[in-house]
Amino acid sequence: MTDVVIAGIGQTEVGEHWDIGLRDLAYAAIHDALHDAGGLKPQALFVGNMLAPNLSRQAHLGALIADYAGLTGIEAVTVEAAGASGGAALRQGYLAIASGMVDVALIVGVEKFTDKIGSGVDEALATTSDSDFEAVQGITPTSQAALLMKRYMHEYAVPANGFANFALTAHANGVANKNAMFRKAIKPETYSKAEMVSDPLNMFDIAPNADGAAALVLTRRELVPSNWQSPLVKIAGSAASSDTLALHDRKDILYFDTAQISAGKAMKQAGVILDQINFFEYHDAFSIYAALQLEAVGFAIKGKGWRLAADGAISRTGKLPCATMGGMKARGFPGGASGVYQAVEAVTQLRGRAEANQIAGAKTALIQSLGGPASTAVSHILQRLD
Amino acid sequence: MTDVVIAGIGQTEVGEHWDIGLRDLAYAAIHDALHDAGGLKPQALFVGNMLAPNLSRQAHLGALIADYAGLTGIEAVTVEAAGASGGAALRQGYLAIASGMVDVALIVGVEKFTDKIGSGVDEALATTSDSDFEAVQGITPTSQAALLMKRYMHEYAVPANGFANFALTAHANGVANKNAMFRKAIKPETYSKAEMVSDPLNMFDIAPNADGAAALVLTRRELVPSNWQSPLVKIAGSAASSDTLALHDRKDILYFDTAQISAGKAMKQAGVILDQINFFEYHDAFSIYAALQLEAVGFAIKGKGWRLAADGAISRTGKLPCATMGGMKARGFPGGASGVYQAVEAVTQLRGRAEANQIAGAKTALIQSLGGPASTAVSHILQRLD
Repeated sequence: MTDVVIAGIGQTEVGEHWDIGLRDLAYAAIHDALHDAGGLKPQALFVGNMLAPNLSRQAHLGALIADYAGLTGIEAVTVEAAGASGGAALRQGYLAIASGMVDVALIVGVEKFTDKIGSGVDEALATTSDSDFEAVQGITPTSQAALLMKRYMHEYAVPANGFANFALTAHANGVANKNAMFRKAIKPETYSKAEMVSDPLNMFDIAPNADGAAALVLTRRELVPSNWQSPLVKIAGSAASSDTLALHDRKDILYFDTAQISAGKAMKQAGVILDQINFFEYHDAFSIYAALQLEAVGFAIKGKGWRLAADGAISRTGKLPCATMGGMKARGFPGGASGVYQAVEAVTQLRGRAEANQIAGAKTALIQSLGGPASTAVSHILQRLD
Repeated sequence: MTDVVIAGIGQTEVGEHWDIGLRDLAYAAIHDALHDAGGLKPQALFVGNMLAPNLSRQAHLGALIADYAGLTGIEAVTVEAAGASGGAALRQGYLAIASGMVDVALIVGVEKFTDKIGSGVDEALATTSDSDFEAVQGITPTSQAALLMKRYMHEYAVPANGFANFALTAHANGVANKNAMFRKAIKPETYSKAEMVSDPLNMFDIAPNADGAAALVLTRRELVPSNWQSPLVKIAGSAASSDTLALHDRKDILYFDTAQISAGKAMKQAGVILDQINFFEYHDAFSIYAALQLEAVGFAIKGKGWRLAADGAISRTGKLPCATMGGMKARGFPGGASGVYQAVEAVTQLRGRAEANQIAGAKTALIQSLGGPASTAVSHILQRLD
């Protein structure tokens, strides 16, 4: 099979865009991605979105955004898998190109939390957990993550500030990312004195809900315009996996099976081993998720994922840089757009254009997008083509 | 490329399933489809759903349903394109198989309207139209269809009961379909005396919102078990297209561009001309949609689609049988499941197992799933392999 490549990227700043509508956000990212792709004309649009039917009372985003972006007529669809919607949209676009039925695919992840405020957001977020058995009891994604983190800290005797470096690393990396929501480094004391949200999760263990859109243009390698100037990035591996929504249905709540399965398949397809992965964009909606992903993918043994943060391995100059542009914690968490932001940021790194955030010699990246507590995981291996 | 075939079908009765949950409905259809597929093991699940995040407060259906169906671990995603969600899920499954990355894909369309009652349903349905410019003014899909029909009747001087035969044909075909919501034939007087809902749409111009689930198993031809007993059905053509959500953004509201584009592409791919299509499963959520699809696909010239109904061409023994198992009008309209029901019914016909409803010698079918007033259209050509 021919290589599927990412030939264009675009993104908006992540933040609270009270004055910009959902379709405008999507358009901004698409505009930049199509411009970056130097004239490639998309035939299909895959929209990654998590909550617009609730937060913005707007479903049917595929046709809406295709039209608004001046692409009326192309096929267009929304792909939803909770927080993994962005990764899942990328995967559908990948399959479309790989099928040979579509030559150029446009992926846009878009989310707008500020169309709703206060408890309406929690209520909407709760639709991504098991409505009949979890949400109905009042659980929210945040309180669910707190249960996971509490159990983890108990099982593995993690000290009180053991997770601090996930937030510190993310914020350090956010400083130089002009699209990040938070561009201020934090100190260990900032973390240790932070307001508790749902014990033991404090404010800095939780990525901020935010508005944003990111876009990608996918095509087959041979269709890339001959005047193309950027290093090409190939999708070398793509895989997804699902698990129970409800935590109580799992044998082991402290192991993210889907993170393991999807990363393993993507790496196998790419012919890549762990040591060859130069950086990892994990789904740090909560710091406990990041720790559990590091373990499931195999970067740490069970119970030791948090040590990779504590020991500095995930920092920009560490053994395994993570959240290299600020991650969800500092770049912000625009729901179903997040997985597309991961890809845009990884491509920026692989092109060698991450400026102050550049990971030296980055050639291979793993990005992983989660829905709920890894009820869905979508993994991609991206590689620079020389 | 190898042939993509439909190797398993399943469906629930369509109706008001107050006592059965969303996941149970999906499971019932999946169970039957997997049984029909004789042991094929799916690696991917594509869920077609339109309104569960609003009507059932449940998003993230991919992982939820995969787990509930005993398929924990497979990749799973929700595909949404309003009323075309079922057709769009089929298309994504088709692309996945065509890519060679997935060997066996499971498609399930599921919708549960009865989780909500009264105006909550209209409010949810309105999220599929343009929220910022249409829904905000109070328009609903039904009132929008009424505007279309009124204009059509005016432009083409259609007499008062000119659309009656769409309903009469659907109800006649629903009688022998044990999964249909309405199994009673109606008389011309029933139509002409029916309650007006939104002038000129009467109760019989509108398909009933309903609960239901339908499922398909897709694979490559060579992977079909050797003990396979049913005639195989091939997906010979697959295509989709998008248009504006809002009617006021169209040049001509009385022509369904997407229906034309997607049917044309699917027929071109299949190498099929109009005369070779033995029956047409249109998206008769409203009788005016059916008329406009007949015109856009090319079965009638502009302004004459209603005549195919009035003249009896769409009846079971007519020139172009439509809604052969009752269509949305009599089988019922389970939102995002509808496009999958169309495929299940077409396969039943092509296998020669439609019993009293059998279209003699049926070999080639066109099915077309719409989102909104053809803001999305997804078309598939299905063919019996001899």
